Amino acid sequence: MSTLGELGEFDLIARIRARAGAARGSQVVVGIGDDAAVLRPRAGEDLVVSTDTLVEDVHFRFRNQAPATIGRRALRVNLSDLAAMGARPLGFTLALSAPPKLPVPTIDALLRGLLADADDYDCPLVGGNIARADDVQLAVTAFGSVPRGRALRRDAARAGDRVFVTGTLGAAGLALVRSERQGSRLRTLPEPRVAAGRALIRRRDVGACIDVSDGLASDLGHVLSASDVGAVIDPAALPLPRGFGAACAREGLDPTAVATRAGEDYELLFTLRRRKGRAQGREPTPARLAKQLGVPVSEIGQIVAGRGLRGLASGTGFRHF
Amino acid sequence: MSTLGELGEFDLIARIRARAGAARGSQVVVGIGDDAAVLRPRAGEDLVVSTDTLVEDVHFRFRNQAPATIGRRALRVNLSDLAAMGARPLGFTLALSAPPKLPVPTIDALLRGLLADADDYDCPLVGGNIARADDVQLAVTAFGSVPRGRALRRDAARAGDRVFVTGTLGAAGLALVRSERQGSRLRTLPEPRVAAGRALIRRRDVGACIDVSDGLASDLGHVLSASDVGAVIDPAALPLPRGFGAACAREGLDPTAVATRAGEDYELLFTLRRRKGRAQGREPTPARLAKQLGVPVSEIGQIVAGRGLRGLASGTGFRHF
Repeated sequence: MSTLGELGEFDLIARIRARAGAARGSQVVVGIGDDAAVLRPRAGEDLVVSTDTLVEDVHFRFRNQAPATIGRRALRVNLSDLAAMGARPLGFTLALSAPPKLPVPTIDALLRGLLADADDYDCPLVGGNIARADDVQLAVTAFGSVPRGRALRRDAARAGDRVFVTGTLGAAGLALVRSERQGSRLRTLPEPRVAAGRALIRRRDVGACIDVSDGLASDLGHVLSASDVGAVIDPAALPLPRGFGAACAREGLDPTAVATRAGEDYELLFTLRRRKGRAQGREPTPARLAKQLGVPVSEIGQIVAGRGLRGLASGTGFRHF
Repeated sequence: MSTLGELGEFDLIARIRARAGAARGSQVVVGIGDDAAVLRPRAGEDLVVSTDTLVEDVHFRFRNQAPATIGRRALRVNLSDLAAMGARPLGFTLALSAPPKLPVPTIDALLRGLLADADDYDCPLVGGNIARADDVQLAVTAFGSVPRGRALRRDAARAGDRVFVTGTLGAAGLALVRSERQGSRLRTLPEPRVAAGRALIRRRDVGACIDVSDGLASDLGHVLSASDVGAVIDPAALPLPRGFGAACAREGLDPTAVATRAGEDYELLFTLRRRKGRAQGREPTPARLAKQLGVPVSEIGQIVAGRGLRGLASGTGFRHF
């Protein structure tokens, strides 16, 4: 059983099923093994659905990422989308395409990473599909739930909103550039801000929210065009990792450009309404937000009327075509 | 704008979004354009999820299928899985992989077919993902809903159940064989039995249900192993299309083998409990079932204790590896 072709489709499914175990949690009624999976959201909840695909030699290369890391990434990029909606993960499906010559240990490691994260994030594998193809592709569709009508959206920023971002920006982008240049192993992994998103949804003053996957400039741009507003960002307020300036300089790169355009951050970018009336001026501080969200929070600018993004060179994120 | 590479990722998404239109129906809260879609099943409903992928040169070839037909097929194979669970379609996501050199008219036709069926089956496109890859792949994840706890399953057949199948078996399989042999256009399309599945779910005597995608022998085999029972099938009772014997003979093929092993039928195979007590013997006839389900129904055998499938040469369907 050294290749996927020798193992066979049905044996691979049985293997995945055995490893996924009985899907935990009351939300899974029927898991792997039927024509479709059956999930049971709680009463009064909306269902949130995200799809993201990793393609071999486009999003990852086996020669510079461990298969387990690739498996983890496939789920995490989707969990980050759920986080940006404020959703609680319910489960996911995997549409796996792979060539028959793929070694079984590779597919095993890939699944091990994927299922370990499924456990850690309480988001069980509930079904999927396996198909023969020339390259490896992992198309994950993740499901989550939010209290009815409460999903965070990217089209709800308003002039006057304060703009915040979780964590730091740029580390993953720099690691990616280095890995590509040096052919070295890429070990960074997104940390989807699931808990922070769920904490945000409990606030009543959130405007828009998006996850920063293509770079701050590109993803903030999505918020602005969807909300039909502009923003002024203070470059000096961007949360850069410690030693980031020097590390970028060694690569001959501009730290602000890397932090805002290289992408791969998977932090949450969100806006908060300003308080009015008697509460005016008693705005939440980043420190108080950080405590509530369980992750560092930085205030980086504000939303203004009229289109346009000031303070950052308007950049583009990674484009597929 | 002659190729996908020239059109660009974001323009393609905008194009899809414009054509998909505002997703109809109260079940879609947030459609294409945010980090994730938001759906609202009715109160007291379970969510049903199916994923199926079509891969270029594995499941379809552009030289012998119209792109619109390929698009339709991508959704329909998933709707067939929803039908087998008795689900009402809610919406779907599309993870599309494609090479930059793909002509825009091809992708347009593909999407036109897909979105026409989305309309016809009241199953709107709510989100998705686009990625660069060497081959075209369409990974569709379709969502549906069923009254709580009522999803039809493949593991619920019991000894004594009568075995039924909708429609006829073999026509699509024969068309596939012919198309492969002659290099001719393949025009057949699955007719997912959505209405029949939803009618079945209203009956209280359904045992197991599955859609026949890999061939009766293979899919009945899944029901038997999941339910830990056997079956006796009457080959003479198989519903073959008119003129099927002669058409198979011209190809030098055995009609029963084509009808039970070539696959692509996308009919529903289901079992019904026998009545007990005073109702004993007053079983529903295939004609009465046909009237209820809105599609021809044939009784082809019964479920028995102990593993094994008698009456059909135990066959295998299409395997991927």
